[in-house]
Amino acid sequence: MMHPKISGLIAATFTPYDSFGELNLSAIPPLVERLRFGGVKGVFIAGTTGESASLLLTEKLRLLEAYAAFQQDSFKVMMMLSGTNQREAIVLANAARKQGIYGTAVTAPYYFRPSNVGQLIDYMLPIAEAAGELPLYFYHIPLLTRVELPMLELLEQVGDRIPNFAGIKYTHNDLMEFNRCLRFDGSRYDVLWGWDELFLAGLSMGAKGAVGSTYNFAAPLYLRIQEAYERGDMEAALRLQQKSIDFIALYGKYGGPATGKAILGLCGFDFGPFRAPVVPLSKERILALEKELTQLGFFEEIM
Amino acid sequence: MMHPKISGLIAATFTPYDSFGELNLSAIPPLVERLRFGGVKGVFIAGTTGESASLLLTEKLRLLEAYAAFQQDSFKVMMMLSGTNQREAIVLANAARKQGIYGTAVTAPYYFRPSNVGQLIDYMLPIAEAAGELPLYFYHIPLLTRVELPMLELLEQVGDRIPNFAGIKYTHNDLMEFNRCLRFDGSRYDVLWGWDELFLAGLSMGAKGAVGSTYNFAAPLYLRIQEAYERGDMEAALRLQQKSIDFIALYGKYGGPATGKAILGLCGFDFGPFRAPVVPLSKERILALEKELTQLGFFEEIM
Amino acid sequence: MMHPKISGLIAATFTPYDSFGELNLSAIPPLVERLRFGGVKGVFIAGTTGESASLLLTEKLRLLEAYAAFQQDSFKVMMMLSGTNQREAIVLANAARKQGIYGTAVTAPYYFRPSNVGQLIDYMLPIAEAAGELPLYFYHIPLLTRVELPMLELLEQVGDRIPNFAGIKYTHNDLMEFNRCLRFDGSRYDVLWGWDELFLAGLSMGAKGAVGSTYNFAAPLYLRIQEAYERGDMEAALRLQQKSIDFIALYGKYGGPATGKAILGLCGFDFGPFRAPVVPLSKERILALEKELTQLGFFEEIM
Amino acid sequence: MMHPKISGLIAATFTPYDSFGELNLSAIPPLVERLRFGGVKGVFIAGTTGESASLLLTEKLRLLEAYAAFQQDSFKVMMMLSGTNQREAIVLANAARKQGIYGTAVTAPYYFRPSNVGQLIDYMLPIAEAAGELPLYFYHIPLLTRVELPMLELLEQVGDRIPNFAGIKYTHNDLMEFNRCLRFDGSRYDVLWGWDELFLAGLSMGAKGAVGSTYNFAAPLYLRIQEAYERGDMEAALRLQQKSIDFIALYGKYGGPATGKAILGLCGFDFGPFRAPVVPLSKERILALEKELTQLGFFEEIM
Repeated sequence: MMHPKISGLIAATFTPYDSFGELNLSAIPPLVERLRFGGVKGVFIAGTTGESASLLLTEKLRLLEAYAAFQQDSFKVMMMLSGTNQREAIVLANAARKQGIYGTAVTAPYYFRPSNVGQLIDYMLPIAEAAGELPLYFYHIPLLTRVELPMLELLEQVGDRIPNFAGIKYTHNDLMEFNRCLRFDGSRYDVLWGWDELFLAGLSMGAKGAVGSTYNFAAPLYLRIQEAYERGDMEAALRLQQKSIDFIALYGKYGGPATGKAILGLCGFDFGPFRAPVVPLSKERILALEKELTQLGFFEEIM
Repeated sequence: MMHPKISGLIAATFTPYDSFGELNLSAIPPLVERLRFGGVKGVFIAGTTGESASLLLTEKLRLLEAYAAFQQDSFKVMMMLSGTNQREAIVLANAARKQGIYGTAVTAPYYFRPSNVGQLIDYMLPIAEAAGELPLYFYHIPLLTRVELPMLELLEQVGDRIPNFAGIKYTHNDLMEFNRCLRFDGSRYDVLWGWDELFLAGLSMGAKGAVGSTYNFAAPLYLRIQEAYERGDMEAALRLQQKSIDFIALYGKYGGPATGKAILGLCGFDFGPFRAPVVPLSKERILALEKELTQLGFFEEIM
Repeated sequence: MMHPKISGLIAATFTPYDSFGELNLSAIPPLVERLRFGGVKGVFIAGTTGESASLLLTEKLRLLEAYAAFQQDSFKVMMMLSGTNQREAIVLANAARKQGIYGTAVTAPYYFRPSNVGQLIDYMLPIAEAAGELPLYFYHIPLLTRVELPMLELLEQVGDRIPNFAGIKYTHNDLMEFNRCLRFDGSRYDVLWGWDELFLAGLSMGAKGAVGSTYNFAAPLYLRIQEAYERGDMEAALRLQQKSIDFIALYGKYGGPATGKAILGLCGFDFGPFRAPVVPLSKERILALEKELTQLGFFEEIM
Repeated sequence: MMHPKISGLIAATFTPYDSFGELNLSAIPPLVERLRFGGVKGVFIAGTTGESASLLLTEKLRLLEAYAAFQQDSFKVMMMLSGTNQREAIVLANAARKQGIYGTAVTAPYYFRPSNVGQLIDYMLPIAEAAGELPLYFYHIPLLTRVELPMLELLEQVGDRIPNFAGIKYTHNDLMEFNRCLRFDGSRYDVLWGWDELFLAGLSMGAKGAVGSTYNFAAPLYLRIQEAYERGDMEAALRLQQKSIDFIALYGKYGGPATGKAILGLCGFDFGPFRAPVVPLSKERILALEKELTQLGFFEEIM
């Protein structure tokens, strides 16, 4: 059977905290409004950007409930369930099913690591069952999980074993494998592109849907890249993609994922800092970041 | 100030499950009795062997309570608190303090990874505070966390910042660094050796205390290695260490940590299988394992 | 100053051997003729594909001489000089200069590895001097050298120290860094794309010139990709790129670089097998490979 | 058949250069005299310490000739033949055989890397044949070659294929594998220990022979460790080993292998600096190093 496909941009959301470091669910509705207004097709919650690895199970359940309220056909809510912990993923899969969100995802477990795709499928199986009818994606992010299994082999073996397996959220640098997964078995599976800074490269290699954290605040820029691409104006597309690259390059300078949350704050959405071990930007650094973004014309680009 | 030092063997315990995969706390007292009878000086719970990464927080709290009942000066209960999740570690540190166990440990967070020891200390700080007077160890296991920070630098920087920092559970292959940590600042810190199969190499490089999973069932063998070492009979010590190596070599053949739990079962302690993604041994494989262990004389060696 | 830029395809040539495993220089002219006829703009000799690491210095000198005879403005001969061995690279740089080929390249030394770009520049400096006016490229291929230094930093530091430094042959998977290097300092340097299977992704991110081994036999396919790209027909471009991906996927099945040399043989150019440790394809495997290529329509695609 | 075993210390020699960076063979005889006087049992030339990767073939042949003159039963000359280049290794193996030195070694090729032990054996086979009766060792140093194949598997498969395969120069951190290789097939093979700073750990795990660079100048210290070990005085042995660790720790501070050559110079043997990419110590740094060594009592320890 052909699985449903996502097209367009899905924002991998940040988790909002208040000044005590507790969940601040009231920050969610304004962001969702902005995302929908900006042409984003859904959210991916409690993922890497959403600090899955730093959230208590009880917090994840509250987060799920808060976002589930916005689930629509035109605005899909997806949740990452784990992690290293199959038990917790099963609890969350059940909750996701009951809340009726669009879909779910799991990473490879990254403490004890599966050494082949068979072990990975065995691990995913009871989670997928708990998710019921909801699509389950495998979230491939070897840079963080240090699990780099062959994705074509996963697709070959998973098919008959997990009926609701929908595809891959592909956050890896092997564009050849990405393209081959897209085409596998008559394009049976959905393969979502996970590198914002290479959005155009992803499109050129066949991407239709993409999940990323900078779509939280810069979706209009990416939609313009896509328009240029679709009308065959590759010079314009590259020029726009380079604007994405130029601001994402600041992540390296200011310090990883915390930079993204700081930019979200500069866009008017105060989600608080990341939890440790991610180091938040100081106020001085945020000011310097804002200055550089202004010089790049960032705030006009994302309108 | 000098920190307290542990000498002798600490068993890194397995987590017991019943046939439904639920915690089976009734399996704990007989094991503790065996450990004490066999000369083991304490337990390290919810660590790598104890499947920290696969346990729910609620399960960890129940496990803590079950083991805390056995805390004595002569039988130390230590608990690993995390993981990737500082929040959860703080909850557990508070609980450990209230239960009055001997000590605590944390690994480096292994999804978002600290890139220097300063970030690691920042991460540990509120956990250490929640632990109160209880000693906190850093559990260094780069093979699994993929965080390989310089441990001497950690000791240099941690001293003034975390008063209850006690030392390192050192499960890494750099015996030179291990020895230098042992001697750092007038042997200020406790550095526990974490490779059972190289127990003798650890002793020769200065180890006094050791934490390992095979001490759950084979402590007498290691105590004999230590006796031979202490009386200077290095031939006998090596002969005995080779018996340890020979049975641990079966882990590679039968499949990682699950083999250890299967051996525990063969020794009369049914703790159930590991949770996924660790693949349990089939009944046939357990029989074959038992046969090989018998051929090695394993069951006599551990008396 | 702006450095000269290469546009179009450069074939990373295989080294030809006779049935005794000795250099077979007579195989070179027919290949060069084919390459020129097929629209290829030059050759890159004694590189990865050319088995630099398996050739004696005396063999490299003979190879250089044999190819130098074909140097023209419209057909550029480039040579990789090393390797791990600065001395040998200097000998070769002198010879390349005397032979008057177009340009040279070096990889990062990969036994003792430079730990920062300053060390790499120090290593390249006397080689570049020996090359005189000839452009020197850094050949970035971390997958094989296991040296992954930041290329922007190299460009920042190299400029004032090596006047004939021309740019980077970029065989790495970081398309964001590739694009930033292309634009560095007003597009001062030449950055050549090194992944044939991602030729289209490279184009979309700004590549103008490319060096690769499949251009030895399949250049027409890549020129058609480029034409489609340039007229903005991205569907056609992707369709053609997928043909490249489909035959390069056979490399994984039949065994690495040896597959490329076998395909060259199937195209009528007998260059003999690779030297050890690369394992050559057996006759049976070559037949099976030919059958699969035929099924893919490969031999029509490369016309 | 049982293979010959080496016991005692083999010095992995540095390559001597004059002030023009050319080979300075006249520096060799005084060093050899010192080594023999100090109880060293032989030399390992053109290895990692000897800068194999930076020497021309012609230089290696001259080096071989210079050392071969000192070959005796009581002072064994061994040579590393490669490298990445099987051809060159065959030339050197022939020369070593003709010069009548004791033995030879090869590393895993480290540009194209063998992916299993079968490929490694295929690569070694013609080299071993060229070496004739001379023993051939596999030099296992994954830290530099990035080839980490299972050594027990190598021993299992090599036996019937390479009659003059003698064993392994083991420079890796897996002491369990080291011990198992020592005992493999009735201790059929020679396995030489390659970490000076863990000499005592090696002894405790069964080492009889050792190859290392600090034996060039500090052999007496290691012989005292061995004496203490053999009489069962493990406290004294550790105290002495710690002296080795303390001066080797300076390598990290002053910069890798260049530090060793600087210490050799401070001991009165001017072998010149390393070739690039290794960065030599400045005169100021050498003075600072000398001061630290003096403070450690190093110069008395090595008497």
